[in-house]
Amino acid sequence: MKVAIIGGTGYGAVELIRFLQHHPHVEIAQIISHSQAGTLFSDVYPHVNHMIDKPMDTLSVDDIVAQVELVFFATPPSVSCRLVPQLLDAGVKCIDLSGDFRLNDPNQYQAWYGSDTAEQTYLDKAVYGLSEVYRDQIANAQLIANPGCYPTAILLGLMPIVEQKLISPNSVIIDGKTGVSGAGRSTSLTVHFSEMNENTRAYKIGNHKHIPEIEQSLSEKSEQSYRVHFTPHIVPMTRGIMTTIYADLNQQVTQSELEAIYHFYYQDDHFVRVRTQGGIPATKEVYGSNYCDLGIFLDQRTQKLTVIAVIDNLVKGAAGQAVQNMNIMYGWDEQTGLAYLPVYP
Amino acid sequence: MKVAIIGGTGYGAVELIRFLQHHPHVEIAQIISHSQAGTLFSDVYPHVNHMIDKPMDTLSVDDIVAQVELVFFATPPSVSCRLVPQLLDAGVKCIDLSGDFRLNDPNQYQAWYGSDTAEQTYLDKAVYGLSEVYRDQIANAQLIANPGCYPTAILLGLMPIVEQKLISPNSVIIDGKTGVSGAGRSTSLTVHFSEMNENTRAYKIGNHKHIPEIEQSLSEKSEQSYRVHFTPHIVPMTRGIMTTIYADLNQQVTQSELEAIYHFYYQDDHFVRVRTQGGIPATKEVYGSNYCDLGIFLDQRTQKLTVIAVIDNLVKGAAGQAVQNMNIMYGWDEQTGLAYLPVYP
Amino acid sequence: MKVAIIGGTGYGAVELIRFLQHHPHVEIAQIISHSQAGTLFSDVYPHVNHMIDKPMDTLSVDDIVAQVELVFFATPPSVSCRLVPQLLDAGVKCIDLSGDFRLNDPNQYQAWYGSDTAEQTYLDKAVYGLSEVYRDQIANAQLIANPGCYPTAILLGLMPIVEQKLISPNSVIIDGKTGVSGAGRSTSLTVHFSEMNENTRAYKIGNHKHIPEIEQSLSEKSEQSYRVHFTPHIVPMTRGIMTTIYADLNQQVTQSELEAIYHFYYQDDHFVRVRTQGGIPATKEVYGSNYCDLGIFLDQRTQKLTVIAVIDNLVKGAAGQAVQNMNIMYGWDEQTGLAYLPVYP
Amino acid sequence: MKVAIIGGTGYGAVELIRFLQHHPHVEIAQIISHSQAGTLFSDVYPHVNHMIDKPMDTLSVDDIVAQVELVFFATPPSVSCRLVPQLLDAGVKCIDLSGDFRLNDPNQYQAWYGSDTAEQTYLDKAVYGLSEVYRDQIANAQLIANPGCYPTAILLGLMPIVEQKLISPNSVIIDGKTGVSGAGRSTSLTVHFSEMNENTRAYKIGNHKHIPEIEQSLSEKSEQSYRVHFTPHIVPMTRGIMTTIYADLNQQVTQSELEAIYHFYYQDDHFVRVRTQGGIPATKEVYGSNYCDLGIFLDQRTQKLTVIAVIDNLVKGAAGQAVQNMNIMYGWDEQTGLAYLPVYP
Repeated sequence: MKVAIIGGTGYGAVELIRFLQHHPHVEIAQIISHSQAGTLFSDVYPHVNHMIDKPMDTLSVDDIVAQVELVFFATPPSVSCRLVPQLLDAGVKCIDLSGDFRLNDPNQYQAWYGSDTAEQTYLDKAVYGLSEVYRDQIANAQLIANPGCYPTAILLGLMPIVEQKLISPNSVIIDGKTGVSGAGRSTSLTVHFSEMNENTRAYKIGNHKHIPEIEQSLSEKSEQSYRVHFTPHIVPMTRGIMTTIYADLNQQVTQSELEAIYHFYYQDDHFVRVRTQGGIPATKEVYGSNYCDLGIFLDQRTQKLTVIAVIDNLVKGAAGQAVQNMNIMYGWDEQTGLAYLPVYP
Repeated sequence: MKVAIIGGTGYGAVELIRFLQHHPHVEIAQIISHSQAGTLFSDVYPHVNHMIDKPMDTLSVDDIVAQVELVFFATPPSVSCRLVPQLLDAGVKCIDLSGDFRLNDPNQYQAWYGSDTAEQTYLDKAVYGLSEVYRDQIANAQLIANPGCYPTAILLGLMPIVEQKLISPNSVIIDGKTGVSGAGRSTSLTVHFSEMNENTRAYKIGNHKHIPEIEQSLSEKSEQSYRVHFTPHIVPMTRGIMTTIYADLNQQVTQSELEAIYHFYYQDDHFVRVRTQGGIPATKEVYGSNYCDLGIFLDQRTQKLTVIAVIDNLVKGAAGQAVQNMNIMYGWDEQTGLAYLPVYP
Repeated sequence: MKVAIIGGTGYGAVELIRFLQHHPHVEIAQIISHSQAGTLFSDVYPHVNHMIDKPMDTLSVDDIVAQVELVFFATPPSVSCRLVPQLLDAGVKCIDLSGDFRLNDPNQYQAWYGSDTAEQTYLDKAVYGLSEVYRDQIANAQLIANPGCYPTAILLGLMPIVEQKLISPNSVIIDGKTGVSGAGRSTSLTVHFSEMNENTRAYKIGNHKHIPEIEQSLSEKSEQSYRVHFTPHIVPMTRGIMTTIYADLNQQVTQSELEAIYHFYYQDDHFVRVRTQGGIPATKEVYGSNYCDLGIFLDQRTQKLTVIAVIDNLVKGAAGQAVQNMNIMYGWDEQTGLAYLPVYP
Repeated sequence: MKVAIIGGTGYGAVELIRFLQHHPHVEIAQIISHSQAGTLFSDVYPHVNHMIDKPMDTLSVDDIVAQVELVFFATPPSVSCRLVPQLLDAGVKCIDLSGDFRLNDPNQYQAWYGSDTAEQTYLDKAVYGLSEVYRDQIANAQLIANPGCYPTAILLGLMPIVEQKLISPNSVIIDGKTGVSGAGRSTSLTVHFSEMNENTRAYKIGNHKHIPEIEQSLSEKSEQSYRVHFTPHIVPMTRGIMTTIYADLNQQVTQSELEAIYHFYYQDDHFVRVRTQGGIPATKEVYGSNYCDLGIFLDQRTQKLTVIAVIDNLVKGAAGQAVQNMNIMYGWDEQTGLAYLPVYP
């Protein structure tokens, strides 16, 4: 099957290429870059030499429609909302790694992103691509809104107890820590090595764009109204997200009952690994891989719950989950092209 | 004035030496090391060459009493509890960077540290050395229990609103992030570079030894019973602590009222810097210095409060605050020997 | 084909498992650990959960002979020299990642390693496993002495011009920079995060154990006597080696002629990538992969040559090259199980 | 004494401020920034809050002449060459941290920097500010050309044996490793955290602008013609330079004789510390301080010499040495305002 990648010079595209390059059912027909069409991809990213030695393409909807069956968008906001409708209408499936199709309500998009997105009719076609939670809808989707990196970790960390209505909807506090690659490849003081090395900073407290998709999914799955307090931080590493999630239980549950609930919920999910007996995962334990590792800790003294979820922000938080969703859409084994052990140490 | 440092080869001692070496009123008479007495200090730490070229001393209470007026303990648990009583009885003042004298109740110590500490009569002599909060008692103390690194950041971050009873005592959730130097110089897999670089991990969730001193101080100053939920993390940097503190306000307050409360509380405190207009400090902005920087953020949507406090764990969180306390005890200007700008970048 | 790995808890073994786990022709029958037999491998390395959930085995030569066809040694010095002879005599092939069989002359081993190695008759059976240079002998070997990490980079960087006798044998100066994982997983101050982060240090100047195998291979291939001056450094990263190699040319050659010589030499070698037009590779461009990337720079002013070779020390410098050698021994495509793009960024 | 700093928002200026702020004989009258005049310095660098709370000034030569006695330039190339002549003519002394006045020969400047610098008459007034080597001339200078960061380490590492003519002038090979702060604060892919973390790269091989000042000083002091082969690298740390210098001895000397030569040469120099008995310094051992630490290793096997010199690139390699030079110019103790121990760990 032939696919195209739009947004070829960002980190999302590079990771898509890492996984698609060896995917047995896929051929990358086009790598499309607005800013560097015509340049050899290996001139921008020398690490792909001897593997990918082709020039990047300009964007042409007609060429895409003529050549490929599926398009991955690894683009900044406000790109896919303009292109996806044309491709869908022409019968090309899309997996969008940007946020343009994640919110069902265009007013919510306007409120959090500060601009318009696609029309409601196209928003309605989008399936939220949290693979383990929306697997059935994904299997039949034409358009996947691939979740944000933080929401992936947070929702996988909360879903088993949220669906069971075990926590108080307004008690959820999320402390996120991300590696610097989450900010992308564009340059700024924020991602300057000398400013970020030996440093930890918080940012966008209470107003991160990922908040509405978290609340939308929690509310939908629990049929309760969720409002979460989210404080993201950036820590001096390249890859990895840890979300430390705090919540008040609304009934008496034990540590082992909680672990059992999580194990049951994810019993058939290869890429979600629940630690046992109070074990706590570290971000390095999923480095470069599509795993989401979970640890649960119930504090007897305070009766508060801590759930820790770790992912590689560029893999399960972006490109890896996109490939997983493609596998689901086409009926392939979910691990196809993704069966990598984490790179450790 | 002559002083001695006990525990000469740990990071606490090295930082004490950095500040005391140029303190105009102090001479370091002894650097005492159990394990490396007789060795040149500069053989263990070559970075002090040309500044400190003396051998380390063995511990002798008689020698200390004969030579020095003040002793700093930079020792592991269960050392100072045996030695401090002898020194106090002989008229030598002590500043203890370990936890042995921080808890008023020896049963609490036993519960959290798993061993006995000093007798109640000596615990009663100890003043908790959070400089800005206990300044008056410190001025008259014979024995300072220097606070832990996390409690320093957390208590400075909470005190203005806790003393005003503005928050619900059981709503406090603390997410701590520390650099690796907080784990000391002894070797283990936890501090192995290859295991900790490009990694973020949580540890001792809900059972960190610093919890009881936090609750003791909050409860005492608010006359309310505090129980905090604390999850410490280790991030891949050497120095620095950020504590992100969440709490529910129990009355209507605005962002600017909160900032005003903090500014008023710390108006005379050089080493506590409150950011204005929602500004949020990063750990690098206090690197190597005795500052504690605070940022406050009130979320209109969730009505929850986020307070961010950053310190250098080895300075304001240990050696720097110890020197600040010595300055208070002896009536010297609080900045003496500590007037360093952070090392940036 | 069934294989065993001896030395199961070190970084070498972990990387072998990463590549062998998905190798289509191989099954890992035993992971043998002296210190942790009986423990689940995933308890020591949680990142392999859901992939490898078996306990580690005790060492039994009889069991190995009964079960497997090939053994990988990822052991400290002086282990394989005792075991390999027994296995070879029993018809089991061996790939040894330690240094025990790299030097043909046991006196050299004694001089550099400070202990005895195997008998000459077994040393004679060993083929030095620098895949691209000794491919023909590797194809027929029963025993591979897998090269050290530094020698792999250095020899691949020098061989094209050494075989052509283009440089003065006594002019070679090598400045090596390695990530910390090269020091293994055992704990020490040298690999302590707080000591090594924000730090660069030199070590074992002029007496690193890798010197004799470099000189042995250069001398053998050039039929000249090589003596190299080697200064290794450790830099604050986990993975990667860069060797910067300086040499005096003994005849007039241009930059483009040099590049042509390198391209010709490695024209059929997928895993060696020669940069063109003065391009210089960085270590991150081979991260996690089996590539060795080369850059050549001829200084017109000084007439000295700089060759830069980068590898991932744990992959092409250890486990990856071992798998590559296995592929050659068994006649499989050299890229089998190794066709991974570097993990970037 | 009142001073001005031009180039207020770069790292050089920030470090100047760190040292001058507590210098007993100096008051910072102006911090001049082209791009951010009028902005509070503490808004650009929040770490100076409570210490420096003044706005930055616009550049006015008249204001400078009216107010200050000495000006520090922490500017990019081609700024000081235009301003210094005006200031000198008006009787204001200058210390220039840029390269504009380092080369005596304007043609050399043109060749390496690609633009013109000041007129010969002003170049002739400049004294090369390598404090320990040119102390006498510095004492009487009106204009100091403060050395580059690499040249400082390299020249201090070579001078004792170069002045003694102990090495072959054309044998010198220098392998430099710098932290990322050497590239300044402007943003680019080169200093992007995600690109530079876990990475080591070489750059500007054989054409770094620091080469001519190294050769000029070596040639002048030895009365021999030096041509050095220099390969700079960037390693993933913020601060620190290590230069590993290789040379052929031109006569028989022992390790202990070499150490004695170095100790004798630097016997009165507080800021140069020579390791004994083959000890090798690491960059962290000078972090944040004005020290240059040296280690010498003579290889018996190859008869080649390795000299290792480490400095903090922003201190002894820039701002610290500038302050040291000011102290010499004004007859103050050389350590005034610089007596800081390195920040370790």
